[in-house]
Amino acid sequence: MKRNPQLNAHGELQHLITLEGLSREILSAILDTAEPFAEVAEREVKKVPLLRGKSVFNLFFENSTRTRTTFEIAAKRLSADVINLNINTSSAAKGESLLDTVDNLAAMQADMFVVRHASSGAPYLIAQHLAATGRSHIRVVNAGDGRHAHPTQGLLDMYTIRHYKKDFTRLTVAVVGDVLHSRVARSQIHALRTLGVPEIRVIAPRTLLPAGVADMGVRVFQDMKEGLKGVDVVMMLRLQNERMQGALLPSPQEYFKYYGLTPEKLRLAKPDAIVMHPGPMNRGIEIDSAVADGAHSVILPQVTFGIAVRMAVMSMLAGS
Amino acid sequence: MKRNPQLNAHGELQHLITLEGLSREILSAILDTAEPFAEVAEREVKKVPLLRGKSVFNLFFENSTRTRTTFEIAAKRLSADVINLNINTSSAAKGESLLDTVDNLAAMQADMFVVRHASSGAPYLIAQHLAATGRSHIRVVNAGDGRHAHPTQGLLDMYTIRHYKKDFTRLTVAVVGDVLHSRVARSQIHALRTLGVPEIRVIAPRTLLPAGVADMGVRVFQDMKEGLKGVDVVMMLRLQNERMQGALLPSPQEYFKYYGLTPEKLRLAKPDAIVMHPGPMNRGIEIDSAVADGAHSVILPQVTFGIAVRMAVMSMLAGS
Amino acid sequence: MKRNPQLNAHGELQHLITLEGLSREILSAILDTAEPFAEVAEREVKKVPLLRGKSVFNLFFENSTRTRTTFEIAAKRLSADVINLNINTSSAAKGESLLDTVDNLAAMQADMFVVRHASSGAPYLIAQHLAATGRSHIRVVNAGDGRHAHPTQGLLDMYTIRHYKKDFTRLTVAVVGDVLHSRVARSQIHALRTLGVPEIRVIAPRTLLPAGVADMGVRVFQDMKEGLKGVDVVMMLRLQNERMQGALLPSPQEYFKYYGLTPEKLRLAKPDAIVMHPGPMNRGIEIDSAVADGAHSVILPQVTFGIAVRMAVMSMLAGS
Repeated sequence: MKRNPQLNAHGELQHLITLEGLSREILSAILDTAEPFAEVAEREVKKVPLLRGKSVFNLFFENSTRTRTTFEIAAKRLSADVINLNINTSSAAKGESLLDTVDNLAAMQADMFVVRHASSGAPYLIAQHLAATGRSHIRVVNAGDGRHAHPTQGLLDMYTIRHYKKDFTRLTVAVVGDVLHSRVARSQIHALRTLGVPEIRVIAPRTLLPAGVADMGVRVFQDMKEGLKGVDVVMMLRLQNERMQGALLPSPQEYFKYYGLTPEKLRLAKPDAIVMHPGPMNRGIEIDSAVADGAHSVILPQVTFGIAVRMAVMSMLAGS
Repeated sequence: MKRNPQLNAHGELQHLITLEGLSREILSAILDTAEPFAEVAEREVKKVPLLRGKSVFNLFFENSTRTRTTFEIAAKRLSADVINLNINTSSAAKGESLLDTVDNLAAMQADMFVVRHASSGAPYLIAQHLAATGRSHIRVVNAGDGRHAHPTQGLLDMYTIRHYKKDFTRLTVAVVGDVLHSRVARSQIHALRTLGVPEIRVIAPRTLLPAGVADMGVRVFQDMKEGLKGVDVVMMLRLQNERMQGALLPSPQEYFKYYGLTPEKLRLAKPDAIVMHPGPMNRGIEIDSAVADGAHSVILPQVTFGIAVRMAVMSMLAGS
Repeated sequence: MKRNPQLNAHGELQHLITLEGLSREILSAILDTAEPFAEVAEREVKKVPLLRGKSVFNLFFENSTRTRTTFEIAAKRLSADVINLNINTSSAAKGESLLDTVDNLAAMQADMFVVRHASSGAPYLIAQHLAATGRSHIRVVNAGDGRHAHPTQGLLDMYTIRHYKKDFTRLTVAVVGDVLHSRVARSQIHALRTLGVPEIRVIAPRTLLPAGVADMGVRVFQDMKEGLKGVDVVMMLRLQNERMQGALLPSPQEYFKYYGLTPEKLRLAKPDAIVMHPGPMNRGIEIDSAVADGAHSVILPQVTFGIAVRMAVMSMLAGS
């Protein structure tokens, strides 16, 4: 029995649903594959023919222009044909089920589905359904599902850390903020552990910590100043205002006071610490503009590396 | 005087507005042309350069992600440049008329308009206007107009029947369901007659039958069990909930009881009967999941053949 | 200190924000560059590889399907990868600032931003920000900002006038209508002056004239019949109903009576006068259909030339 549905019989990546359960070898292979794509983006002609004639469907059951754009540009630079589907406004309204939609698009000879969905597990369900109906040659990439995972974000974060810090096995990394509502945080923590980061810290108010977070092998801090001491990498999370139900937080002002990353708090980290954020930022809530635009910030390089990482994932899946 | 505005002086197809009035030769030619395109879709590189440098405009005055996607993928596999226009949200809001919109897009050197419109006759009006203004070189493909026609759906249905049954002239075919609101049914019945199907049956409650349906050369059944006896092909229609005004039906449950296709009812058809549906399906209303996903169902192959048929139509129009 | 932020150190166009301040040489160079592109559009294969592998982002903070389409088709005919972003429905809703959005897209290795924004000055702000952050290699094209400018519209108007009238220095040109709310009018008047048109007239009711219009070097007429006498070119403006706040006009009927272009009024212009309109037209309000579709109208050629002019601008910016 196969243990990881993302891998084929030869242990190659065939879907990317979550970073959970992926080996250090596979994660490193993705990061290695991304390196030359980061260079493609510097060229005059930013295109390679690896996915020429392939049909990539961006299946966005939840609106996210930013993430859709990164996948669209990555697929187009691989020369794929890209079809954008915003499913809120279409078949779902006519009462068609998720799997009927998938069956239909699969029957149009799709080669890859990039899936964004508000429900955790939707991309896995799709991959499982494709396998059950003998169509595993159609690849699935999770572009964010509910509170579960956002694996390409996790990968681009790892790429960024490796780019600036080289060796994972000597780092102290802090993940700061709304861990409870963040699919990004889960993907990050899994990847950091797998890649051998010895100390992973989670910094958040108690109300924004998921139950059982300590079981993920992290050190939990409620005092941000304590948590930032001596860290090499600060990974800020977006405060998911739109997801908060009820009063988990007193006010944005109070949040910023205790958990906003300011130059003062950042001074507690190592002098060469890098600051990351998955975007879009809430300036003045989780991060001060002086930090966001400051010398430690690698927030924009993250975006650039994100294209390269997505090109790497898509080309590996298409080739396996 | 030309009798069919879809044909040029040499009898070649120049627009595809309706299957009404198209000869058996033309219908067969389209199906024949589609054959190799069905094979293109199986290849690694699913592209042919037949429409390279041509501009195809998807003019969707009525939202239909599914249909738009099939045309977009077909045009891209022919290497065309595709521009999607959802007109609800644009010029129409600024009070521009349909024909001013068409004139403008034509002036952008469009090569083809794929038109979806809630009003019957809109694609014909556009083709007529292009002819009147000396721009018939711009081709028009009807992607569904009001209750009138949906010719590429009719063609893909014919392709599917021919694929599984080879010879039209020995078949009994039943069209089942909401014939009144269905533009698909009209296109199907015209095509079936033209291709020589000797017995076409329409099965529907009286309230969902259009006036004068018997004049279309079909046998009408209100009892589904009677109507299905010995048929080779069952063509289910979608129950157009969103179009029904007033109480034509007692309830979905009652509809399913009398007109839903269940394994029991299907047993009355020939043992090798095929079941078709234009999608999206209302499972449990017009069709039972056991049938939709069962051995007789060719619903997903219909989708696959639909891409090939649209590629055939577009390439024939562009070449004529 | 550089006087015009649109030009680089060699005086070459690097952004197109406004026609204001551009020399006759640069305007003429754009029009000259557009000539062969007008021919490309006549070919079977309407593509040139000038922007192959470049990423053009259509950043539409204000919806305009028509304008977006012209830029999309122009970019695709130059073989660019085009990404459409309708920003209303995306990051803006998540509270991301304009410049954060720009930074993010820039980090995806954008080559060009085509910007439409309801606020005057937004494209300039973007260009300035790119320069301040060392990324001036990303080009900015203004596709309409507030009441400020719509330079490609102004350029296509100039192309149209030159096409039909050859020599600017002997013309009398009238701009008619809602000058107050029109970003088109400003671009037109600047370009006409720069290209040497000796007499520019503005015809409008007092309530639709901007303060200080006379300082733009134009003759102002409130009586349309007076203003049209002997003109070579009539440039109608769209009545911006949706922008009018309060009662600047008595009624559309009254507007048409005094300022609608009818065949009778047009007879006061030169016999070979041309009639232009930026579209979309309000037939029966600012223009009579008999004029819009009549022998003097060059409204549809304007659209055709618009594609060529946009291809010219994009290829010049990409090459400089």
